[in-house]
Amino acid sequence: MSFKLTILGCNSAIPTTERKPTAQLLNVSERFFLIDCGEGTQLQLRKYKFKMQSIQHIFISHLHGDHYFGLIGLISTMHLLGREKELHIYAPPELKDIIYMQLGASNTELRYPLFFHSFGFESSQVLLENSSITVSTIPLNHSIPCCGFLFKEAQQDRRMRREKLEEYNIPNYSVPKIKAGGDFVMEDGTIIPHLELTRSAQKARSFAFCSDTSYHEPIIDQISGVDILYHEATFLNDLKERALQTKHSTAKEAGTIALKANVGKLIIGHYSQRYHDLDPLLEEAQAVFEKSFLAIEGETHELIRSYDSDRG
Amino acid sequence: MSFKLTILGCNSAIPTTERKPTAQLLNVSERFFLIDCGEGTQLQLRKYKFKMQSIQHIFISHLHGDHYFGLIGLISTMHLLGREKELHIYAPPELKDIIYMQLGASNTELRYPLFFHSFGFESSQVLLENSSITVSTIPLNHSIPCCGFLFKEAQQDRRMRREKLEEYNIPNYSVPKIKAGGDFVMEDGTIIPHLELTRSAQKARSFAFCSDTSYHEPIIDQISGVDILYHEATFLNDLKERALQTKHSTAKEAGTIALKANVGKLIIGHYSQRYHDLDPLLEEAQAVFEKSFLAIEGETHELIRSYDSDRG
Repeated sequence: MSFKLTILGCNSAIPTTERKPTAQLLNVSERFFLIDCGEGTQLQLRKYKFKMQSIQHIFISHLHGDHYFGLIGLISTMHLLGREKELHIYAPPELKDIIYMQLGASNTELRYPLFFHSFGFESSQVLLENSSITVSTIPLNHSIPCCGFLFKEAQQDRRMRREKLEEYNIPNYSVPKIKAGGDFVMEDGTIIPHLELTRSAQKARSFAFCSDTSYHEPIIDQISGVDILYHEATFLNDLKERALQTKHSTAKEAGTIALKANVGKLIIGHYSQRYHDLDPLLEEAQAVFEKSFLAIEGETHELIRSYDSDRG
Repeated sequence: MSFKLTILGCNSAIPTTERKPTAQLLNVSERFFLIDCGEGTQLQLRKYKFKMQSIQHIFISHLHGDHYFGLIGLISTMHLLGREKELHIYAPPELKDIIYMQLGASNTELRYPLFFHSFGFESSQVLLENSSITVSTIPLNHSIPCCGFLFKEAQQDRRMRREKLEEYNIPNYSVPKIKAGGDFVMEDGTIIPHLELTRSAQKARSFAFCSDTSYHEPIIDQISGVDILYHEATFLNDLKERALQTKHSTAKEAGTIALKANVGKLIIGHYSQRYHDLDPLLEEAQAVFEKSFLAIEGETHELIRSYDSDRG
């Protein structure tokens, strides 16, 4: 049951040959979620050996080009390669027209079903919810409407202690009820409590993607305690004013959000093209929040499954 | 006075990490003309050290994505880098709305004047004409409306023979008239003919860009005798039927057009992604037309100035 985040692009608005615009791929148990899709993302997927057809859900945070100009190319290539499987796109409302106007101009009727799900920017809303994951928007504060995304694994049931099955002679058909939280009642009426029969569940893992935004404390509650926080850090703190003007964040501000939200680790990215050496950005974030890392194209951050401390 | 064509991308619809979609840059005496603009063209310009701001005219042959998906990113980056100089785009009519819809979605007001010049597909039309070059459309036969482009240097005046200035005591103010074709009348009424006083002009160079098209003989007249012909060659001849269906050409057909149009040299490109080794395509074209070359990303084809044989 994997939970891996791969950075496909980490730069801000102007791409360079070394640093592509924003795109990240989240692999949750071999379900692939693409988050933002700057120009050239389809080639980044090829370069890092991902199968583009395995992506079924694409999330676009906002309509600045460095976050979506690669989408129409990806949609077209999926079509040309014979895709038949559904594709779901979660994006600001205008994107649907932009995509369909381009498909129309090339007289393309997609071979596969394409679904657009648009979202608003005022409050968090759930975009996708199934037995393994929930994805919600994180309203951000940027120069145009923009949302981040919170990916949360579904909470799993606690696990049965095998030795208890024998000890209390528990029939198989009772197991699901016990795992779901029920106690076991023996033939003589004795109640064996759920917590004695089970051990802790696997910890639900979580990832919050916050791009682009000025320093924005209202997000802290929602992202509190996530395992990985990606937060943009376009500038160093000496350009704090520029960050404020353009509604971006500094590395120090990203670190501060991570600290206040008590996250597991922070990944910063969306670097201004002015920075050739990224170490000062990392150092600035780490000075506030030690477990800070740089988003580097091609690098993968994996969350190994852990368990809540066993209180049973 | 340079005349150089650089290949920025040479693949057909599906880009690969080694071969980008169509884009070419023509440098005529340090004026830069971008021809088609597949996804990632702005990075190709950077990679090959061209200054994107020096491009003033962009020609888009048709609205299949592999020929224009990189345009919006290039326009945006020019803006972000502070461009103030005019940019002219020559394209099918729908492109204007596609670009403005995307600029609107990101709330971008360009800092520089952007002019769209749309063209039709029925007959050739002149898109640009000035003292150094004329650019006209070449109507092609493709699955959606598509035009190639013919770039022709302006015909220069014949050059004065310096020794004749002294011999006939020709005043400076008479020179432009003579170069432009006039005879010289001496004080005693003797007429010295133009051809005696001048030598041949520099030969006007020309380049025809033909992408995408099925084998289409009606273009031959218009491109007859060009110095360089770029003609798509998506398939080998064993896939002639597939070429016909998709309205593309085979390498053999590209060679045949080059032969019939008696061009200086042929460059083929727009290769199907199925071909890893391009040599068979080249060999097939060369079997018909010897001076055939492959379009290879990053390669430049230069036309050295030559002179018409001196009949004066």
